[in-house]
Amino acid sequence: MHGGNLQAGIVGATGYTGMELLRLLIPHPRVDIKVLTSRSGQGRPVADVFPGLPGGADLTFSAHDTPALRECDIVFFATPSATAMHKVPELLGAKVRVIDLSADFRLRDPGQWEHWYGVAHAAPELLKRAVYGLPEINRGEIASADLVANPGCYPTAVLLGLLPLLAGKQFKPGLLIADVKSGYSGAGRKAASKNLFSEASETFRAYNVANHRHLPEICQVLAGYAGQDLKLTFVPHLAPMVRGIFATLYIRSESSAAEVAGAYQNHYMHEPFVEIVDSSEKLDTGSVRGTNECRIAVNKADDTGLLIVSSVIDNLVKGAAGQALQNMNIMFDMDEKTGLDLLAVYP
Amino acid sequence: MHGGNLQAGIVGATGYTGMELLRLLIPHPRVDIKVLTSRSGQGRPVADVFPGLPGGADLTFSAHDTPALRECDIVFFATPSATAMHKVPELLGAKVRVIDLSADFRLRDPGQWEHWYGVAHAAPELLKRAVYGLPEINRGEIASADLVANPGCYPTAVLLGLLPLLAGKQFKPGLLIADVKSGYSGAGRKAASKNLFSEASETFRAYNVANHRHLPEICQVLAGYAGQDLKLTFVPHLAPMVRGIFATLYIRSESSAAEVAGAYQNHYMHEPFVEIVDSSEKLDTGSVRGTNECRIAVNKADDTGLLIVSSVIDNLVKGAAGQALQNMNIMFDMDEKTGLDLLAVYP
Amino acid sequence: MHGGNLQAGIVGATGYTGMELLRLLIPHPRVDIKVLTSRSGQGRPVADVFPGLPGGADLTFSAHDTPALRECDIVFFATPSATAMHKVPELLGAKVRVIDLSADFRLRDPGQWEHWYGVAHAAPELLKRAVYGLPEINRGEIASADLVANPGCYPTAVLLGLLPLLAGKQFKPGLLIADVKSGYSGAGRKAASKNLFSEASETFRAYNVANHRHLPEICQVLAGYAGQDLKLTFVPHLAPMVRGIFATLYIRSESSAAEVAGAYQNHYMHEPFVEIVDSSEKLDTGSVRGTNECRIAVNKADDTGLLIVSSVIDNLVKGAAGQALQNMNIMFDMDEKTGLDLLAVYP
Amino acid sequence: MHGGNLQAGIVGATGYTGMELLRLLIPHPRVDIKVLTSRSGQGRPVADVFPGLPGGADLTFSAHDTPALRECDIVFFATPSATAMHKVPELLGAKVRVIDLSADFRLRDPGQWEHWYGVAHAAPELLKRAVYGLPEINRGEIASADLVANPGCYPTAVLLGLLPLLAGKQFKPGLLIADVKSGYSGAGRKAASKNLFSEASETFRAYNVANHRHLPEICQVLAGYAGQDLKLTFVPHLAPMVRGIFATLYIRSESSAAEVAGAYQNHYMHEPFVEIVDSSEKLDTGSVRGTNECRIAVNKADDTGLLIVSSVIDNLVKGAAGQALQNMNIMFDMDEKTGLDLLAVYP
Repeated sequence: MHGGNLQAGIVGATGYTGMELLRLLIPHPRVDIKVLTSRSGQGRPVADVFPGLPGGADLTFSAHDTPALRECDIVFFATPSATAMHKVPELLGAKVRVIDLSADFRLRDPGQWEHWYGVAHAAPELLKRAVYGLPEINRGEIASADLVANPGCYPTAVLLGLLPLLAGKQFKPGLLIADVKSGYSGAGRKAASKNLFSEASETFRAYNVANHRHLPEICQVLAGYAGQDLKLTFVPHLAPMVRGIFATLYIRSESSAAEVAGAYQNHYMHEPFVEIVDSSEKLDTGSVRGTNECRIAVNKADDTGLLIVSSVIDNLVKGAAGQALQNMNIMFDMDEKTGLDLLAVYP
Repeated sequence: MHGGNLQAGIVGATGYTGMELLRLLIPHPRVDIKVLTSRSGQGRPVADVFPGLPGGADLTFSAHDTPALRECDIVFFATPSATAMHKVPELLGAKVRVIDLSADFRLRDPGQWEHWYGVAHAAPELLKRAVYGLPEINRGEIASADLVANPGCYPTAVLLGLLPLLAGKQFKPGLLIADVKSGYSGAGRKAASKNLFSEASETFRAYNVANHRHLPEICQVLAGYAGQDLKLTFVPHLAPMVRGIFATLYIRSESSAAEVAGAYQNHYMHEPFVEIVDSSEKLDTGSVRGTNECRIAVNKADDTGLLIVSSVIDNLVKGAAGQALQNMNIMFDMDEKTGLDLLAVYP
Repeated sequence: MHGGNLQAGIVGATGYTGMELLRLLIPHPRVDIKVLTSRSGQGRPVADVFPGLPGGADLTFSAHDTPALRECDIVFFATPSATAMHKVPELLGAKVRVIDLSADFRLRDPGQWEHWYGVAHAAPELLKRAVYGLPEINRGEIASADLVANPGCYPTAVLLGLLPLLAGKQFKPGLLIADVKSGYSGAGRKAASKNLFSEASETFRAYNVANHRHLPEICQVLAGYAGQDLKLTFVPHLAPMVRGIFATLYIRSESSAAEVAGAYQNHYMHEPFVEIVDSSEKLDTGSVRGTNECRIAVNKADDTGLLIVSSVIDNLVKGAAGQALQNMNIMFDMDEKTGLDLLAVYP
Repeated sequence: MHGGNLQAGIVGATGYTGMELLRLLIPHPRVDIKVLTSRSGQGRPVADVFPGLPGGADLTFSAHDTPALRECDIVFFATPSATAMHKVPELLGAKVRVIDLSADFRLRDPGQWEHWYGVAHAAPELLKRAVYGLPEINRGEIASADLVANPGCYPTAVLLGLLPLLAGKQFKPGLLIADVKSGYSGAGRKAASKNLFSEASETFRAYNVANHRHLPEICQVLAGYAGQDLKLTFVPHLAPMVRGIFATLYIRSESSAAEVAGAYQNHYMHEPFVEIVDSSEKLDTGSVRGTNECRIAVNKADDTGLLIVSSVIDNLVKGAAGQALQNMNIMFDMDEKTGLDLLAVYP
């Protein structure tokens, strides 16, 4: 660190995840943003690209290969997949710690990575070194990591909704379904006709049914956590909203809803960003909009005895940039909530 | 019939379902709208209440107890629950045929009705006489019925998505989940803060988790159809859109997705308003907006073998007013598609 | 005509305007769609591209240069600007009548066209031959035209809101302002980041302030109609909705609001698609969604005496495809309302 | 003050304005929220009513007449009109300073207040004592005021867009038009069918054309500021979004757009929350969502020479709660930006 404050860089700072990192890092009391890179925004001032970020007025976007990145304490990658893997080795070599918000270091097996992402991995030797950045399971390892693979948005919502159950052994194997609904900001800023306002408004759709890249990521973490392979049926949908993920999880359990809710309460008692609410009627994605919170409710279907766990996050905060800050706070031994005491902008 | 055309009445014509009946009945070539009743609109011309329905310009809303209803060939009830049951007996006595779009005649067991709707049923003797108006299972009985209980919007989407599987015996009992997403028009026109634009926009929520009034309706039809009690986990959600239901159904089956899709194709081959599409990527509620179509896709999760059936309808058309017209067409021996050759307004 | 029905072609049928032409032409009782062309959809069946248009199931998109166009009675161009001008001469030579929904034949002066559209006009000799297809002023000429320039969406809303005033001489020159708000479907189907759901939702913006291509089109028609040059301040905005234009017009007049409203009533008394409503509180774009209606209200500001005329249309119907059908009906001596008795899909 | 921090109270804390005050006051470093009152929420904890405000977890809503209000340093009224005027005299008597976010103390003339709000004013003697809380014109008076009338949302957007012009004498009298577009949160939390999601979505409407209660408020301030009566044509509209006001102002001026923009730059050079942007293309309400910024662009119509000034704010922040905090900061001699360094949540 220089002058007490962390020097931070963001690679790919003009996508939605990069923008959100900016929104959160600009007011962070212990961080100076030293360098931002962007292919499309190169050479332009931040305030020109993002009029809503006046605090970033004196920053200008650089090219991706700027040497200034090597002088940072921490560099965030908010790039499309298969980008970070080409640059991270050099930064690690320069003793820069890295949080990658893309998928490049989330899967441990290079073969599986290649299967899902369509190209060979450029830095397979780093896959095992990378720490999966879900603080609720890996806080200790994150603290000492030099490479953190920040979880995907869907995995964050789904995993936080399942972990206490697996931990508590109240789980009866044989069924795991995640029916998940996301806003469109998860689809990123790249122009595509199907994501135009006129095509996305007033409609609800499924996509990548049982075939989404986040499925192997979730399964890998579940297996590690539960100590056994667990198969998951994962169906993502798009709802006509910008931010938010609502995961509805169906699981078998012999325990009552109250017992399970109690187990969840205990499990997350000391977690700063997970809250168990007593009624699913109080769960909506709007109540976490703009915040790093994950809120969870537990219900049980009277007739079928299925457990129904609902989990909501803001996909750009707890599902991306906010969680990355949480990881950074842990890595640099700061209070985990620094810069993350955000209140929902609601309505 | 008078002068060749059916004389039709609508009770409760200023709610969303009533409005939609008007939109569909005004251009229907074989129907004259003889009488419309409305508590709130009483005495006002239709064009005053609904500026977008110029064809209704010469109609005026009457009080609910207008004797003109007894002179109709067909009367639609688009009233809140526990209203139609008080008026239907008299109309049936006057040889008026009735299609009730509310829930009053959907459940066969008066005890169960009272349990779910909170008051004793006023005409329990009619519950068994009423025909459940899902043409895809009851076309013959509907043709001769004098009282049709028009299905709820959720039951329509869920049942059409499940029936071929049950019929074809490709279904492996033990798991039935319906994770269903609806637009806000299903919540009706009654003012409630939580349904305000400011509170419903940009948020996704669940409600009545595993405890919705449409659950017993679905289960009753499933049991009748499958010849055995089938338990269903049913979780409704609200998405920030006006129209549309997207049902994601999870079922066990030993058959492959292709086999199941083939069975669905065969089952609905002659149905005018059900279409099987070859990819769930083509399913969105926007593609049925304003139409009487139900569109269905079949997928199978590779890892878990679960069958994932998706089904979309417009809740106000196939889920309410359009299905009511379809039933009327059947009851009066008209081509079932008359007045229902609607194309989606998209985008 | 062949077999009594018009043989129609659409060039560029996969944009929003082309889709809307399809939605309206498929059920038109006097038209057979003979040929559809599309660069992006070439070779694909309509039902594949537009799942919501089942009636189009047996049509397949052709290439733009298909000779089948020459065998049509009427060809619609729903292409980007500077496309139709290259193909129309040949079609006119083959005695095919043409309705161009793009801007290619709207301006009479080739120099002005080049100024606003950035390239030289390829068929300047046709500019004076083309009839401006606003039936409310040019019905007679449209009937005998072989080339109709279908008006822009903004010009339709603004002109219909101003014409009676200019006609009636109740207008006091010196001030003409059109503050206009549009949905995003007017921006077309081409992917652009700023029109993504995530960027367009929950925000309101202006664009091309006092510098929009529709300004010269409006001014040209106003000058021809009023017999004098009239200067207009025209500011377009984008509202987070798909369809609809709401034009708020500010004009000076010595007459009272009631007198002006009376003049509007008289002026449009026999127009099938223009309605004067008695209160601006009843005007909203939702009430004309999916229809060919233009609805207008007249108010006067007490303090300043300014006249405030509000005008609403659906930009894809009266502002594009619906008006094109209205013109076709006129050109082929059919009832002007054929295929256009559309009711608003509301809510 | 007690213990260094201001003790603050909010009367009517469950409406949208009250909620937004909470969102801003909870993290304010110099304020303790001592008491919150609410008729509907009485006795319930804040976190129960607003799940998205975890920082408010230990607060509970009181009744309106709680004596705790008298022990506050500052009390905010976020009540419907004609409420604060009954309670403010007593609080002022107890040396509590008051910021009223309702309209009760905005008009100086009790007769005019009665005309627009329909009842006689209960504390007419306070109307002249109240300071109009627009810091950009009244900073000095606000500092020493004990009763601040916080401006309406429309007046804030319109006045900030007009003041530099009037101050600079570049204004040519004779025309002042404010065509203003608002999101639905301005309509408040009270349930009304026309503000339901299903009725407000996908539609654009005008209301109270040239007859809105904010008109006399704007005119009063303009007259005071310009030293002459200025008549304004004011037309409010509702756009289908939650937050945001976009004001398009039409004015005559002999000066060029660049001269006017320069004058605006100079005028607001030291204002912490007003920014002049160089292009109206950069103005959208999304860029100020959740922030206390007002952003303004200046354009001139080439043909007509009219000046077009556009101004955007978040109606709940700079148009209500944020401006109230700004006033509080001024009244208690704190840095005006304390607690207001908010970044837009975008997308």
